[in-house]
Amino acid sequence: MIAHSTSLKGVFCPAVTPFDDQLNPDIALFIEHCHQLLEEGCHGLAVFGTTGEANSLSVDERMLLLNALVESGIDGSVIVPGTGCAALTDSVRLTQHAVELGCRGVLMLPPFYYKDVSNDGLFQAFAQIIERVGDQRLKIYLYHIPPVSGVPLDLPLVGRLADTYPDCVVGLKDSSGEWLYTEKLLRTRPGFGAFSGSEIFLRNNLLAGGCGTITASANVNAPAIRSAYDSFQDEKGEVLQADITRRRKIIQAHPMIPALKSILATVAKDDNWRRVRPPLLPLSSTDSNNLIKSLVMDGYPPLTKMAITIEQ
Amino acid sequence: MIAHSTSLKGVFCPAVTPFDDQLNPDIALFIEHCHQLLEEGCHGLAVFGTTGEANSLSVDERMLLLNALVESGIDGSVIVPGTGCAALTDSVRLTQHAVELGCRGVLMLPPFYYKDVSNDGLFQAFAQIIERVGDQRLKIYLYHIPPVSGVPLDLPLVGRLADTYPDCVVGLKDSSGEWLYTEKLLRTRPGFGAFSGSEIFLRNNLLAGGCGTITASANVNAPAIRSAYDSFQDEKGEVLQADITRRRKIIQAHPMIPALKSILATVAKDDNWRRVRPPLLPLSSTDSNNLIKSLVMDGYPPLTKMAITIEQ
Repeated sequence: MIAHSTSLKGVFCPAVTPFDDQLNPDIALFIEHCHQLLEEGCHGLAVFGTTGEANSLSVDERMLLLNALVESGIDGSVIVPGTGCAALTDSVRLTQHAVELGCRGVLMLPPFYYKDVSNDGLFQAFAQIIERVGDQRLKIYLYHIPPVSGVPLDLPLVGRLADTYPDCVVGLKDSSGEWLYTEKLLRTRPGFGAFSGSEIFLRNNLLAGGCGTITASANVNAPAIRSAYDSFQDEKGEVLQADITRRRKIIQAHPMIPALKSILATVAKDDNWRRVRPPLLPLSSTDSNNLIKSLVMDGYPPLTKMAITIEQ
Repeated sequence: MIAHSTSLKGVFCPAVTPFDDQLNPDIALFIEHCHQLLEEGCHGLAVFGTTGEANSLSVDERMLLLNALVESGIDGSVIVPGTGCAALTDSVRLTQHAVELGCRGVLMLPPFYYKDVSNDGLFQAFAQIIERVGDQRLKIYLYHIPPVSGVPLDLPLVGRLADTYPDCVVGLKDSSGEWLYTEKLLRTRPGFGAFSGSEIFLRNNLLAGGCGTITASANVNAPAIRSAYDSFQDEKGEVLQADITRRRKIIQAHPMIPALKSILATVAKDDNWRRVRPPLLPLSSTDSNNLIKSLVMDGYPPLTKMAITIEQ
């Protein structure tokens, strides 16, 4: 049995990043949203992930937002920012910054420009960051999201990293969409900090000994996901899981990030929320309306009052 | 017939970026290499492309190198730096910088983190950069390299960009590896500044009305590629093309960037050349030796003297 020094557990939200009319990050709205996510039951914030459009932001923009978040009173112990970039020097800079701000961990993409690279090369990429940051406080959650990054992290690589840096490489977010990956990871490395990248796999993850979920839809459905997390062993665990799975599927029938922003815009009655940076685009009015109608029909609580308006 | 305001023609080298023992860019060696490439017959330098490991460098590192290059006396009129990043703000910053330094054009990747994005979204990505830079001197060569970027630029998108910004979007580098793409581009948009991403397609490109090649192997085989370019209509054009195609195939039997650096290290007797940033790795000694032997057997001029040593 391998001991892994992670205690991170729960529902983490990869917070979306709002933009102003110049497409600059809207810092005030970002902070407000992050505070609300914690109030709604998220255990923590995995800011600057795929959902946060982190790779559409410069390193300076990411550092500015993280500084503002900590200055707003959110403790580093509940923040797990994404810090993996295409460029080694960018990853080192962001990771160092996160550690200095006391972040509980970092979620780390592999360098994602070159494809079909070797495991030795990917190992070196992570090793260089770890050695250069050189700080025992650094806790890395590997970010496996091959459909977007184009660079899968296979289990032998994960194992080699965890064996070489057991106090540092302590977990992984599985956004492959394939449950078998997490299942095998937890079977071969019990105790490893495995998070599912979608709440669809939350109950499976927890029953298999995993740590929870880091899921985009927590931006709009945190209370329900938190309930499912808390009750996974209860009688009602299966029902709550079915509820959040059904809702997730309604949302992900559309491009995820624009869909989340449409929902937030509708709930907050603030069209500023709709903005995304290219190459993403906001949902069309039609798609947005269809999404909202589907959620209302599903009894989505933040919209139940609006349901009356829509149905009339 | 559409008029495109490009006069860029010839053999352009996406110069490799050497690193010191801390994996920082070796500025002096980079500049020396770039000057040598121009002496060897390259018409210009497409620095900070895939071959230059540009996406493994931070924005600041790229700007530092470009400044140094111009300060070393290389005129902006022969420089076409890569400036397309995943983040809008990074692309704007690099593109603005290149224009201010008088660069002849820029080679622009689409934002490459998100996959399966819409043409409307990609159009917006380029449009935002063009509008934000807002400088009539800006000449963009689109960079189509789907096997690496994971984000193809299809011909309708290229056409829409060229029609919307006819004085700005003036060309494209085709690194798809599929000649049909360039062939169709030149057939449907005669006069568009099409460069082949490999010298294998150089003669085809020129015969079809294209502008030349931006090719990695110019780092090590510039004189021969230049000769083939100059002679493409001559009797010996076919033979010279066959020569550079054969040599290219010897090199690309190995991972391209480490292979080029192995050749440069061997010719310059300087092992510093072998370094790459992760996730790339240097060639193994065995692979490097095999590559060098194959080139020697092919009569590769910079190694003919060393051939005696190897054969003994």
